[in-house]
Amino acid sequence: MANLSEIARLTNVSISTVSKVLNGKGRVSEAKRKEILRVARQLGYTPNYHARSMARKSKILTVGLIVPDIINPFFASLTRGVEKACGEDSLVILMDSFRNLEREEKLIKNARFFGIDGIIIGNSRVSDDLVEEISTYIPVVVFDKFYELDNVVSIVLDNRYGAYMATKHLIENGCKNIVHLGGTHELYVSLERARGYEAAMNEASLKPVVEPVGYNESVGYEGMKRLLELGFQIDGVFCMNDLVAIGAIKALKEKGLRIPEDVAVIGFDNDKELCEIVDPPLSSIHQPVEEMGEVAAKLLFELIKGNSKIKRYVFTPRLVVRQSSLKKVKT
Amino acid sequence: MANLSEIARLTNVSISTVSKVLNGKGRVSEAKRKEILRVARQLGYTPNYHARSMARKSKILTVGLIVPDIINPFFASLTRGVEKACGEDSLVILMDSFRNLEREEKLIKNARFFGIDGIIIGNSRVSDDLVEEISTYIPVVVFDKFYELDNVVSIVLDNRYGAYMATKHLIENGCKNIVHLGGTHELYVSLERARGYEAAMNEASLKPVVEPVGYNESVGYEGMKRLLELGFQIDGVFCMNDLVAIGAIKALKEKGLRIPEDVAVIGFDNDKELCEIVDPPLSSIHQPVEEMGEVAAKLLFELIKGNSKIKRYVFTPRLVVRQSSLKKVKT
Repeated sequence: MANLSEIARLTNVSISTVSKVLNGKGRVSEAKRKEILRVARQLGYTPNYHARSMARKSKILTVGLIVPDIINPFFASLTRGVEKACGEDSLVILMDSFRNLEREEKLIKNARFFGIDGIIIGNSRVSDDLVEEISTYIPVVVFDKFYELDNVVSIVLDNRYGAYMATKHLIENGCKNIVHLGGTHELYVSLERARGYEAAMNEASLKPVVEPVGYNESVGYEGMKRLLELGFQIDGVFCMNDLVAIGAIKALKEKGLRIPEDVAVIGFDNDKELCEIVDPPLSSIHQPVEEMGEVAAKLLFELIKGNSKIKRYVFTPRLVVRQSSLKKVKT
Repeated sequence: MANLSEIARLTNVSISTVSKVLNGKGRVSEAKRKEILRVARQLGYTPNYHARSMARKSKILTVGLIVPDIINPFFASLTRGVEKACGEDSLVILMDSFRNLEREEKLIKNARFFGIDGIIIGNSRVSDDLVEEISTYIPVVVFDKFYELDNVVSIVLDNRYGAYMATKHLIENGCKNIVHLGGTHELYVSLERARGYEAAMNEASLKPVVEPVGYNESVGYEGMKRLLELGFQIDGVFCMNDLVAIGAIKALKEKGLRIPEDVAVIGFDNDKELCEIVDPPLSSIHQPVEEMGEVAAKLLFELIKGNSKIKRYVFTPRLVVRQSSLKKVKT
């Protein structure tokens, strides 16, 4: 194994110059710098120990970010927000559970053996016991759920209010028979959205119909098709998310129904790319996902430093109106 | 600061039992385990030093993954592939450059100070000098470009062949005036795709027209609009990627042109969600991005272990035909 003095001898510079160049520092001519790097490489110099000892000495924080699916634009945006807050001095260790709860819990449990300074759990499916246990070891930021634990901060979107807004918007556009294609019951988020929908319907003395379907296009398509075949009279649909709405639109079109003239449709998440490409462009509820990721990371840093006073941080969604929900009000 | 013996005394167990529970090991009743964790938390026990020393002893590899934009589905899929290959024993440090080349080069340069074992650069924009320099310190896997360096492995899609296939498919469907809405010249990928297009056109004695536009929907829209306004007779468009194709389709529709009857369109990347939602569904060239990410990570591990014999790994794209390119051949 080559050492610094050998490299120094072969390149006619001092050991300290070699060391500086190998550490990306010092003022050396470009030609000399390249020569030193070339010789180092040719001699098979492996500076790992050196680099590692520097890493240990430096004050770099590592954040573990656990997501169920990085391909889902929601979690990609969340990740971008976390990356932004971390800047160039902190590292983000990304852990994708591939929607496998067992893997997810294992990743979380292992986090403390990896020397990670804190974790952000981008999903509300993990058990309360696990959050309680892991928070004994490291600070935790969770999404969509509240915890009364010292070492835990919650980031929450007001899902109920978002769903209420979406439903009220359909009502204001003249819809009376509005169904909700919802998520599955085990997710707190889904329950909250169903409750917001029900609140708006009850307020207008309309009868709520909740059909739990799930989270992607195909379940939206199947769910909508089922309701139409059962003979439901429908003039408005509030969907769990944009993908479900896109599936619903497909099923409505197949039955010869026009959107928004016959049936107004609104989604949730406001995935801009999707919402603008679908025909007609899809109205949706916007959540500031990237900003939520940024705040999550900042609050985690506060927790790590031990000076966090915030236990929960609530974001408010907003309504984005496009063509799919603009039904003409009959007067 | 609390220590193990204090926790042991308050919970009536041995120090070794406390230590085991705090490390997620040992056979203790669930009730006792929870009590120990609760007391540890109440006493403000911080097991970080312990966890860190374990991390140092363990053989966990850390992979630095640099992407220009995690929200782009291409890089999200690539990340998923890397995550898959890393399993539960290796860590992925995700670094998003936000398409800022300066930040990207800084992240790459800093990687060796973070104790990272190897890096994967998901973008071909970085300078050859930087790749050469960083490979002196740590193993590197790059995409879309070849290097004759010891510590570097290249993962490449045969872009030229993909573009050739796409163009030939349009020709076989009766198109004669095919334009290419291409990427910008500084990206090797863009040049390769333009070359593949030109090869297919020349082979069929058709005149190639390359219009460099860029990589998103709006430049596709503007580019297509410009060509139509300049009076080009066009019956086929091969686009740099799916987003550009979606923009082109919008411009064609605005001019009252039907797809595929008047103009056949094909994209590149085969972003399934986008391709199926657009009207009509978009034909595209599929690249196995997730698999490319997996192979990248596996080859990086070989490099780290010092037993890599592969210098480059070439993936072959395939044609996915949907409605947008199925022009009726006039006979």
